[in-house]
Amino acid sequence: MSVLGSKKVSKAVLHGKKDLRLEDGEFSAEPGKGEVLIGVQSVGICGSDLHFWTDGQIGDFIISSPMVLGHEASGVVIAIGEGVTDLQPGDRVAMEPGVPCHHCQYCKSGRYNHCPDVKFASAPPYNGYLTNYVTHPATFCFKLPDHVSFDEGALLEPVSVAVHACRRVSVGLGSKVLITGAGPIGLVCLMVAKACGASVLIATDLESTRLEAAKSCGATHTCLIDKTSTSRQVAEDVKRKIGASPDITIECSGAASAISAGIYATKSGGSVLMVGLGAPLATLPIVDASVREVDLIGVFRYVNCFPAALDLIASGKINTKALLSHKYALGEVLSAFEMAKSGKAVKVIVDCSSKE
Amino acid sequence: MSVLGSKKVSKAVLHGKKDLRLEDGEFSAEPGKGEVLIGVQSVGICGSDLHFWTDGQIGDFIISSPMVLGHEASGVVIAIGEGVTDLQPGDRVAMEPGVPCHHCQYCKSGRYNHCPDVKFASAPPYNGYLTNYVTHPATFCFKLPDHVSFDEGALLEPVSVAVHACRRVSVGLGSKVLITGAGPIGLVCLMVAKACGASVLIATDLESTRLEAAKSCGATHTCLIDKTSTSRQVAEDVKRKIGASPDITIECSGAASAISAGIYATKSGGSVLMVGLGAPLATLPIVDASVREVDLIGVFRYVNCFPAALDLIASGKINTKALLSHKYALGEVLSAFEMAKSGKAVKVIVDCSSKE
Amino acid sequence: MSVLGSKKVSKAVLHGKKDLRLEDGEFSAEPGKGEVLIGVQSVGICGSDLHFWTDGQIGDFIISSPMVLGHEASGVVIAIGEGVTDLQPGDRVAMEPGVPCHHCQYCKSGRYNHCPDVKFASAPPYNGYLTNYVTHPATFCFKLPDHVSFDEGALLEPVSVAVHACRRVSVGLGSKVLITGAGPIGLVCLMVAKACGASVLIATDLESTRLEAAKSCGATHTCLIDKTSTSRQVAEDVKRKIGASPDITIECSGAASAISAGIYATKSGGSVLMVGLGAPLATLPIVDASVREVDLIGVFRYVNCFPAALDLIASGKINTKALLSHKYALGEVLSAFEMAKSGKAVKVIVDCSSKE
Amino acid sequence: MSVLGSKKVSKAVLHGKKDLRLEDGEFSAEPGKGEVLIGVQSVGICGSDLHFWTDGQIGDFIISSPMVLGHEASGVVIAIGEGVTDLQPGDRVAMEPGVPCHHCQYCKSGRYNHCPDVKFASAPPYNGYLTNYVTHPATFCFKLPDHVSFDEGALLEPVSVAVHACRRVSVGLGSKVLITGAGPIGLVCLMVAKACGASVLIATDLESTRLEAAKSCGATHTCLIDKTSTSRQVAEDVKRKIGASPDITIECSGAASAISAGIYATKSGGSVLMVGLGAPLATLPIVDASVREVDLIGVFRYVNCFPAALDLIASGKINTKALLSHKYALGEVLSAFEMAKSGKAVKVIVDCSSKE
Repeated sequence: MSVLGSKKVSKAVLHGKKDLRLEDGEFSAEPGKGEVLIGVQSVGICGSDLHFWTDGQIGDFIISSPMVLGHEASGVVIAIGEGVTDLQPGDRVAMEPGVPCHHCQYCKSGRYNHCPDVKFASAPPYNGYLTNYVTHPATFCFKLPDHVSFDEGALLEPVSVAVHACRRVSVGLGSKVLITGAGPIGLVCLMVAKACGASVLIATDLESTRLEAAKSCGATHTCLIDKTSTSRQVAEDVKRKIGASPDITIECSGAASAISAGIYATKSGGSVLMVGLGAPLATLPIVDASVREVDLIGVFRYVNCFPAALDLIASGKINTKALLSHKYALGEVLSAFEMAKSGKAVKVIVDCSSKE
Repeated sequence: MSVLGSKKVSKAVLHGKKDLRLEDGEFSAEPGKGEVLIGVQSVGICGSDLHFWTDGQIGDFIISSPMVLGHEASGVVIAIGEGVTDLQPGDRVAMEPGVPCHHCQYCKSGRYNHCPDVKFASAPPYNGYLTNYVTHPATFCFKLPDHVSFDEGALLEPVSVAVHACRRVSVGLGSKVLITGAGPIGLVCLMVAKACGASVLIATDLESTRLEAAKSCGATHTCLIDKTSTSRQVAEDVKRKIGASPDITIECSGAASAISAGIYATKSGGSVLMVGLGAPLATLPIVDASVREVDLIGVFRYVNCFPAALDLIASGKINTKALLSHKYALGEVLSAFEMAKSGKAVKVIVDCSSKE
Repeated sequence: MSVLGSKKVSKAVLHGKKDLRLEDGEFSAEPGKGEVLIGVQSVGICGSDLHFWTDGQIGDFIISSPMVLGHEASGVVIAIGEGVTDLQPGDRVAMEPGVPCHHCQYCKSGRYNHCPDVKFASAPPYNGYLTNYVTHPATFCFKLPDHVSFDEGALLEPVSVAVHACRRVSVGLGSKVLITGAGPIGLVCLMVAKACGASVLIATDLESTRLEAAKSCGATHTCLIDKTSTSRQVAEDVKRKIGASPDITIECSGAASAISAGIYATKSGGSVLMVGLGAPLATLPIVDASVREVDLIGVFRYVNCFPAALDLIASGKINTKALLSHKYALGEVLSAFEMAKSGKAVKVIVDCSSKE
Repeated sequence: MSVLGSKKVSKAVLHGKKDLRLEDGEFSAEPGKGEVLIGVQSVGICGSDLHFWTDGQIGDFIISSPMVLGHEASGVVIAIGEGVTDLQPGDRVAMEPGVPCHHCQYCKSGRYNHCPDVKFASAPPYNGYLTNYVTHPATFCFKLPDHVSFDEGALLEPVSVAVHACRRVSVGLGSKVLITGAGPIGLVCLMVAKACGASVLIATDLESTRLEAAKSCGATHTCLIDKTSTSRQVAEDVKRKIGASPDITIECSGAASAISAGIYATKSGGSVLMVGLGAPLATLPIVDASVREVDLIGVFRYVNCFPAALDLIASGKINTKALLSHKYALGEVLSAFEMAKSGKAVKVIVDCSSKE
């Protein structure tokens, strides 16, 4: 018999393009060896959840059978499986959603984000967390201090993306950083870069309201983009405003024009991090990048970043109030997705706590 | 009065697009503080020399006044200026052609190849070495052992490009390396990567004769490209031939399609080095690069590479015989350029030794 | 005739062991090419100044002829030499005191702190700044914003030491750092490590008052050392207090026992930075360090660190009030040295501004 | 019933100090999930095997119950367990002897050599390979090409130590390397450093015969140490012989005096790798190391090095003939240990193939 018994649960299941349904189900799984059983609490809606919902796919990841969405999550440990010693029932945790194979060359060499056999919550065919209960490996759960809320716990995942980005190019003391795109991930990157010691932080966006948000998150400068501006013009604007060339550009918009602006703006010997994802092909000023050794650096998820993300949130270096803009119950998950899609929200949280 | 007195000299002067002239002149310069006076011996013709000749410009570098070409050079020290202690008359040397300001942030931080005030021989407006005498800072001259010929000395410059490339991404023991483009610089990169400990070296090219050259330079595999193949097909071919994905691609052709093939072929977490230069804009599969963290790394000239390049040549790790294919007297410099342009030569050397 | 004319000046000249004299002199030097003439304002007294005074030497550096002390300094630009474009008379600056040769392999490769021909103020035979006027290369002067005081400007030098230390081992987000020795340099290292994103900062010392200072500078934990404790006991105390092993130890006391405690405490794969200097020979648990890959990392002065140090001070990340404890006029320089020697001061500043 | 059935086997069991016994036993284990069953072929005797035998312990590792020795091994796959896809019966393999937990922070971050729960063959309480059959995880077995012998396969382990050492400090093109101690591990480090592109390789030893071996392995210089020489004198000798300071010292003798000589000899900004292990405490010139930023770098086993080690052996870059000096049957294992202890052998191999 199961630890939990059989429980009635709700879950937000994507059946295909634009076909997200709130469904009832039963949950009776037990935590296996090294796993814990978690009562899910807060789940953030990510841009990728939205894309799966609106398009039914992201690149080669296609929704071919029903899948529960959601991978930014926190919860409470309800039971522990064999061999778990670091967690106990009642512990409040955030979950790192990608569990790698632990045995391939990527796993052995500390780059498990590239494990070809990773099981990532809400990437087909693996179910996500927009439901009431899940099991998860204990070593991919991170214990939250009492003063960190479940909603903040759900932010560990996007903050980890920014930690990974900043680590990939060693953002550090005195770095001058350009962030192109002041949406949720841009804001998080901005705050993490600041926590790394960056001294100049300039954010660009097409929307002035987003730039206001960037300022409240610590941007030292902002630059409103006119859609008619060329990438070179944007780069010149940025350089004029900060009186220098940025050392690093963190591209968070996914627009090819923003990558180009990043290349033109970044100082020789610097880097352009590509956090945002756009069209598969982009036309870029590659000779300018090459001869000035402005390297184009990829960023995929994160690896060993949750502890630092937790430190950042627990210490108050991440302004979580600026991010946590909206909250819905799991029963209202469709409204939550509509709000997330509207562009009016920063981060929408879904409360998945069981109400029985 | 000058050390040398006034000497009649010949020089290969580019006056503009397709207007290269062998001219007579006078040379009477003395070595300044920290400089040496050099009797030029061997000068290699580089792809950039050819571009200046055929196009009158390379990107923003425009031939607006007459300029002596040539920057791959060796010679004999004739006299030393004040404060020079490491060299003496009679020393045989190779010259590093880019002399930086020594005082800017790039110079102070060990990346003097990006010094905005660098004086680079044969980059407008600075004269190159296709003449009989030059002065040069002693610290940018590298003493050749007796068994290294002047022609080999002229190869230090292109070998340094490859050393810098391999250092930028730490080619090392067991690296699997794809080299796209088996022209002179591709061959040199291949040999340097091998000397770094790379165990798999696959070269691609459109010409089978170039692939034969690659084999003689140490390629473990070759891949003849069919012009009708897509970048994805080339990448699949490469991976099938070596039974793995390359860790690193060294792109030496300048073709956008080759950069794309490099991105598709390189393993997740690897790098594509962009040594070749082509059109300013290129359309690239940037999302594939980004999500697999295949970083696009620029390469500009070299920095602190001449000593390692000299070691490689002096120790026989660079097969200089495979590179030194043609030689002309300075009086035949136009024929030398025609041969270099023909594509039939690997490296054309011009003998600039004074014949009096 | 000189820009300044001939001026009567005072200077603090060390003639040998315990023989520091305030002397009168004349100053009439002009700024050479690339130099500026500076009216000295604030000069901090460093531990090395004290050592020269009390011992007449530091290791192989021996006071064999009279030398002006002081190398932590700020001042006002009075005149500029030929070719200086970034500074003008009236600019307030801090001076980086070690001017390298710019041409050796260390200078070329971005590690100019190891230049064998560096001219370092107040290291024999080069005079320091405890006087009214000096000339200095413009590229080694850093312009202070209006809100940074001259006394704060004099702190750029010790802060740069800490910046260099933290950079040598990449102190970053979430780093757990042990600082052994909470004197001036320990406090500065603590604040810089915090600015790099370190989340746990534990300081040790024999004096509880120093640990109070550490807390006011951001230490998350402190550990009072009992002189009878073994290095292993200290290490266990540290680990118990922070509930983990530090990733990095920054040793600032110079005691061999503290290096040993750092080795025992630091986690496998971590680093012990040796900032403090003690006896030439030390007996260390080298097998424990080796098999746990706890690397012992040297720290010598700084290289390219003044800009970041200035950012840290200008942005308020360094609590300069906690450091600037005492101030004396140049006429009272002997009292200033007595206070610095007493151990009651954190940082003693000498006001060198000309009073005419 | 087992794959193999129950087999009579021999094994070399250490019962305590100087008490090594050849014993008979039964083997009937089956390969578990992800494991393979291996018929052991060649096992090299390592210095640590000798230490366990002569002292009954190494540091905190104490032989408290009988343990099979040997961890440098190759064999033939006899059967595969569930989920093994990359190997099949008949495959010839070398075994990486340390199997980590795969789940701790060290394992996740690519430094599994520091996994606190690693199960390392022949480190108490885990049995080694000096027997006829073992089971081992498939992902820690490396398939040998046909032209690599079993004896050469047993060398992958010591070669991996050298690969890890050279990687820790990026030995590369043009590196000048001092190797102190020309025993087996010194010779292997020498050959691996050469394969990385090092151009100057100077070996030191007390025995001239060992220096002859070093020459045959590629040393460009050798330096016979007189026992009465001080560390400073040795350092001066080394520098005079190569006309420069080494960039890197690889200390392979375990003598404190050799570490000191390495510190004095190594250029400022270089590194001393501590591969050899001697007395727990060593008195070292730590101020000289610190102020010249000569870092002391630990080396513990290896991590992700077997593939590169295999490449080095398969490509002939390691002169295995110079290493494989003696071979004994498992029945003569005591004689094999006596020979290894005598100092007359380079590497002693024990043939463990089953003779039924």
